[in-house]
Amino acid sequence: MFIPLVIQHRHVHLSKKDLRQLFGDEKSLEIESELEHKGQYLYRETVNVEGKTGVIESVRILGPSRSSTQVELSITDAFAIGLNAPTRQSGDLSRAATCKLIGPAGSVRATSSVIVPARHLHCSDRVAKKLRLKNHHVVTLRHAEKSDVVLSHVFVRVHPTFALELHLTSDEAAHHWLHSGDLFELC
Amino acid sequence: MFIPLVIQHRHVHLSKKDLRQLFGDEKSLEIESELEHKGQYLYRETVNVEGKTGVIESVRILGPSRSSTQVELSITDAFAIGLNAPTRQSGDLSRAATCKLIGPAGSVRATSSVIVPARHLHCSDRVAKKLRLKNHHVVTLRHAEKSDVVLSHVFVRVHPTFALELHLTSDEAAHHWLHSGDLFELC
Repeated sequence: MFIPLVIQHRHVHLSKKDLRQLFGDEKSLEIESELEHKGQYLYRETVNVEGKTGVIESVRILGPSRSSTQVELSITDAFAIGLNAPTRQSGDLSRAATCKLIGPAGSVRATSSVIVPARHLHCSDRVAKKLRLKNHHVVTLRHAEKSDVVLSHVFVRVHPTFALELHLTSDEAAHHWLHSGDLFELC
Repeated sequence: MFIPLVIQHRHVHLSKKDLRQLFGDEKSLEIESELEHKGQYLYRETVNVEGKTGVIESVRILGPSRSSTQVELSITDAFAIGLNAPTRQSGDLSRAATCKLIGPAGSVRATSSVIVPARHLHCSDRVAKKLRLKNHHVVTLRHAEKSDVVLSHVFVRVHPTFALELHLTSDEAAHHWLHSGDLFELC
């Protein structure tokens, strides 16, 4: 079974509290499109992410709200605004960097929120069973056409709502010269 | 006719002189894959691009050699290493930024080499005729599915060797939440 790559753009997940502070009201946000993962979506609105030495403007927001605000950047993005963000699995904000988020209705200091997402693949329980994968497995993938492009230490995340997708940051994609839609196989 | 998006990763085109200085000999470079544009290819080897305040490591090199070295970065990339690179059409290096390129055999000061590539589409003469486009036309494109994603000021580049592709930087892709393979139409 082939696993399609989806390059992860920089993005933000917001807590309900931070969302209200940045936009005034959840209702002031509009859903632009649904993601492949069931129940997740992309808002039309954006926030500015301010670090110690710069700002990245117009960063997209994914919904729904989470318990903690999480900002996902590439290493180059983080470096560009003076943040030393650690590479982490989503949800692990230990020693994550702190930024300021700026929205139309206000700003928040998002303490321990900024990470570089570690490369990972998503799949549903059904697909995981077919691929003999379990949640939190660490696997190695090979590009279906360029056999010398091998990605080790790919973290597996299983959830009934997940589509089968390999997620890399734009830095990793640039390094290996990969594009969304490229196909990978388990080694 | 639909025009597929190919997000442009940061990359370098090298002059023969700079290539020799960085790698010792052209023969020490290996072609990894051919690009869609006939006669263009991706080398396996990489260079480091050093700006005033940082370095981006392992930047891919496209061949064949050109008369002048040209480094193409996103705005965020340029900002990350302290370069104020102007947005330019490929080949227009007026007031381009200066960087240092570092290879395994040596380094070069690449004066007026660093640009942010302006968004553009490539097409062959045959396809240009069908689309009623001419070289250096400036057009507006609409996303085939998300009709509110409209890209104005897209520069047209026609050459017999070109595949039909829309090229955007990773910053533009992140802003509009686009992926390689997304389809666009002329407005």
